[in-house]
Amino acid sequence: MTTLYSYFRSSAAYRVRIALNLKGVEYDQASINLVKGEQRETANLRRNPQGLVPSLVTDQGDTLTQSLAICEYLDERYPRPALLPEDAPGRARVRALAQLIACEIHPLNNLRVLKYLVRELGVDEDGKLDWYRHWVAEGFSALEAMLSGGTGGGDFCHGDAPTLADICLVPQVYNAERFACDLTPYPAIRRITANCRALAAFAQAAPEAQPDAAPSSTPRR
Amino acid sequence: MTTLYSYFRSSAAYRVRIALNLKGVEYDQASINLVKGEQRETANLRRNPQGLVPSLVTDQGDTLTQSLAICEYLDERYPRPALLPEDAPGRARVRALAQLIACEIHPLNNLRVLKYLVRELGVDEDGKLDWYRHWVAEGFSALEAMLSGGTGGGDFCHGDAPTLADICLVPQVYNAERFACDLTPYPAIRRITANCRALAAFAQAAPEAQPDAAPSSTPRR
Repeated sequence: MTTLYSYFRSSAAYRVRIALNLKGVEYDQASINLVKGEQRETANLRRNPQGLVPSLVTDQGDTLTQSLAICEYLDERYPRPALLPEDAPGRARVRALAQLIACEIHPLNNLRVLKYLVRELGVDEDGKLDWYRHWVAEGFSALEAMLSGGTGGGDFCHGDAPTLADICLVPQVYNAERFACDLTPYPAIRRITANCRALAAFAQAAPEAQPDAAPSSTPRR
Repeated sequence: MTTLYSYFRSSAAYRVRIALNLKGVEYDQASINLVKGEQRETANLRRNPQGLVPSLVTDQGDTLTQSLAICEYLDERYPRPALLPEDAPGRARVRALAQLIACEIHPLNNLRVLKYLVRELGVDEDGKLDWYRHWVAEGFSALEAMLSGGTGGGDFCHGDAPTLADICLVPQVYNAERFACDLTPYPAIRRITANCRALAAFAQAAPEAQPDAAPSSTPRR
């Protein structure tokens, strides 16, 4: 059996849940409560020396970390439906869109960074929100330009089927909504997100649909 | 001809230079001076709506962004020598090591983030250095554990030839040295970095070897 070590609100785990669902891979989910600090306990550090989620223990007994690496692994092990296009420039475009989110927005806004801002730098709640929204706006402005120009314009980030880019987009939009970021300047992002959310693979991966979801986890809209 | 839009000190550009050199791809280099803000000028924004470097314009006329996406493209277009192992779990391990750096260390320490700390949050020079070193230490501690345990122990991050993981490691070590981070707790990282630097593909990609290198760019050791 495949086991995902996850937390309902972790957007990196959310990505992997979407990929597993798109591929139709059955998996167990084990909750690592980030708010309680369970990610730093020995059992999790043995799976993932970074003390983060997600980790995926495959049916072959391999322990994998880093959400995008896990998604690429799933795409190699279970080729259909493909998470990347066939052509090399298309694959590069999809990976670039995914990395724009995973390397340029998300790392700045995750829990450990927000904690550092508050505890080490004495940033107040307003300053924290400004920080959060600044990096979302920076990233989403560029993403919107990339999605609405040139090769964009399909139902999803790249063409008419979901790819690795959509797998990253939807959790990032979920986060942006939680922090009440203004998404009106990003019609392509909103349109594509709505198309994704209409698919069962995405809906069933949503934080509020997870067994470890807290009752108060409904995103603010 | 292949053209890399680059800045000598950008570690994302540094990664792509190493990959191009390992693959033996001839390329022109066009400098985008990040300190002067040239990345935000219209010509660069047209290539890369994020206003970042690097961008790669391929011999086929495609414009690619995001350093890891570019490296994967190069690996698909020019398969030998391979930047990823043959087996899916090995590929996942190499990508996870690369992403540990590219998604968890580097994004927190790049120029635009350091500027935000200083300008928006009023962080002083000591606070900025603490921030920088904190995220290097967090990431390198985990990386050291992953490199010295289990499947580690080769001359490079994964086995005895350089991969995408080494391509990310060496520029990150260069950055850590510039900011005088203490690297003594990371013998595996230091050993592998030395092995990489002994290779022409890495040496020729170093910031101080680039045509746009400033005279004062020699890293502090």
